Amino acid sequence: MEQAKAVVEASVRKARELNLLMNVAVVDAGGNLKFFTRMDDAWLGSIDIAIKKARTARLFDMPSGDLGRLAQPGQPLYHIEFSNDGLITFPGGIPLQDGTGHVVGAVGVSGSTVDNDQVVAEAGASAFNAAAP
Amino acid sequence: MEQAKAVVEASVRKARELNLLMNVAVVDAGGNLKFFTRMDDAWLGSIDIAIKKARTARLFDMPSGDLGRLAQPGQPLYHIEFSNDGLITFPGGIPLQDGTGHVVGAVGVSGSTVDNDQVVAEAGASAFNAAAP
Amino acid sequence: MEQAKAVVEASVRKARELNLLMNVAVVDAGGNLKFFTRMDDAWLGSIDIAIKKARTARLFDMPSGDLGRLAQPGQPLYHIEFSNDGLITFPGGIPLQDGTGHVVGAVGVSGSTVDNDQVVAEAGASAFNAAAP
Amino acid sequence: MEQAKAVVEASVRKARELNLLMNVAVVDAGGNLKFFTRMDDAWLGSIDIAIKKARTARLFDMPSGDLGRLAQPGQPLYHIEFSNDGLITFPGGIPLQDGTGHVVGAVGVSGSTVDNDQVVAEAGASAFNAAAP
Repeated sequence: MEQAKAVVEASVRKARELNLLMNVAVVDAGGNLKFFTRMDDAWLGSIDIAIKKARTARLFDMPSGDLGRLAQPGQPLYHIEFSNDGLITFPGGIPLQDGTGHVVGAVGVSGSTVDNDQVVAEAGASAFNAAAP
Repeated sequence: MEQAKAVVEASVRKARELNLLMNVAVVDAGGNLKFFTRMDDAWLGSIDIAIKKARTARLFDMPSGDLGRLAQPGQPLYHIEFSNDGLITFPGGIPLQDGTGHVVGAVGVSGSTVDNDQVVAEAGASAFNAAAP
Repeated sequence: MEQAKAVVEASVRKARELNLLMNVAVVDAGGNLKFFTRMDDAWLGSIDIAIKKARTARLFDMPSGDLGRLAQPGQPLYHIEFSNDGLITFPGGIPLQDGTGHVVGAVGVSGSTVDNDQVVAEAGASAFNAAAP
Repeated sequence: MEQAKAVVEASVRKARELNLLMNVAVVDAGGNLKFFTRMDDAWLGSIDIAIKKARTARLFDMPSGDLGRLAQPGQPLYHIEFSNDGLITFPGGIPLQDGTGHVVGAVGVSGSTVDNDQVVAEAGASAFNAAAP
C-alpha cells in the first residue's frame, strides 16, 4: 500500500507541476485495484479510464500505448479492446517492475491529453522504480 | 481530494488500531469514486464491496446497513440490489455530510465482519465531519 | 501450471471414483483463471459456477460455503453475491494455501450436489497441499 | 475431455518448442468452455482473449482471423465484435472438425504475436484432426 501510495503521490505532484487535473490508479500483480485518487475537478469519465489503463498495462505487461499501436484498423490486434471487460489502448498506463524486472503492477493516468497522461504516469512509475528494493 | 484522503487515512488508522485489514473507498456527491486504498493482504473481494457500499450510501443518502433492513425478504425494498449495477446493503457504507447537513459523498469499508467494517467507516466519517467547514 | 493441473486431475479422479460429472476450475493468487476442465456430459451451467466458486474462495480466502452461511437472508452478508460480477456462495470452492499458510489460489467444483462438489474440491485441494513445497 | 486435453497439450508442446508463453482454450460444439490452461508467466489479459478466440471460431465455424478481415472498417462485418458479449477477430482461433468435416469445437490461443498464436493453435488443431475417428 505504501508503494502504491508513493506512485500515486508522485503522479499527483507531477500533475500539479504541469497544472493538470488527473485521475491516478494503481493495480497489483493480479490486476486488482490497489490505490486510486481523483484530483478535484478532474474528469469523471477518467475514473474508469485510469483504472482500465492500469489494468491493460498489467494484463499485457506493456505500456497501454504500445498495445494501442497494434490495435489500429488493419493492425494485428484490432479491436482487442473487446476483451477483458474493456481495455484502454492509448497512452497513460505503465507497468511497474520490481528490482528483478518482474511486473508487479501498473499505474494508469487519465485526465488530459494522452501525452500529458503518459508524462504523469511516467512520473509515478519512476517513483516506484526508485522505491523498489 | 484532501478531504477524501483524510477520511481514508482516518479509516486506515482505525483499522490498524483494531488490527484489521481493510479496503476503503470514498465517493463524491455524484457517487463517483474519489479515493481508494487497499491495505496489504486485505481481501481482494472487498475492493468492489467497499466501492459499492460507498456508492449505495450516497445513492440513497443513508447508511448501507439501514437500506439492508428494508431489502430483506418481505420488506419493501426486497432485491433493490438489482438496481444501479449492483448495490451492497449490509453495514460499512456511511454518507458524508457537509456543515449544513447536505450529503456530499460517502465512505465504504470492507474487509472484516460487518460490525468492524461499520466501526472503521464511522472513524472515516467522523474525520470528515471534523474537517467540514 | 503443473500445480494447477495436479489439483484438477485429483478432482477428476475423485469425481470418477464417485461416478460424478464435474467442472473443475483453478484460479491463481490474483483470482485469475489458471486451469479448467469439464468432464464429458457435465452440466454446461456449471462452467461459470465452478469458476465463480474458485474466484469466491480466493477473493475472501475462505471456502465458498462458509461465506454462504453469512449470506443468507437476515445474516450479515446477505446478497454479497451482487459484488465482484457475481459470486457463488454455496460449497465447492476451497482456497489453496502454500506451505506457510498463504492463500495462493483456489479450486472450484460444480456438477452435482453441493456436498459432492465439496468432496471433489477437497480432493483437489489436498493434492495441492501435498504438492506445496 | 480427453480430446480437448490432447489439443491443449499439443499447443503447449508447440509453445514450449518455440519458447512462448501461452493461454490455450478449447470450446465444444455449443461454444462452451471445455478445457483451459495458462502457462506460467503468460499474459493475464490473454485468458479472456484465448477463450473468446475459441468461441469466435466456433460461433462462425471459421478461423478468427478470417472473420477479422471482414470486420475491418468499410468491410461487411464491421464491428461484429459488439455481438455475443464480445468477439476477438484476429488470428489464433481455429475450428475443430470431426472426420466428416463437422465443426465440433474450436481452439483459441493467445500470448504472443498473432502469427505465433496462430501457429500454436494450428498445432493444437492438428492434434485433434489426428485424433478424430
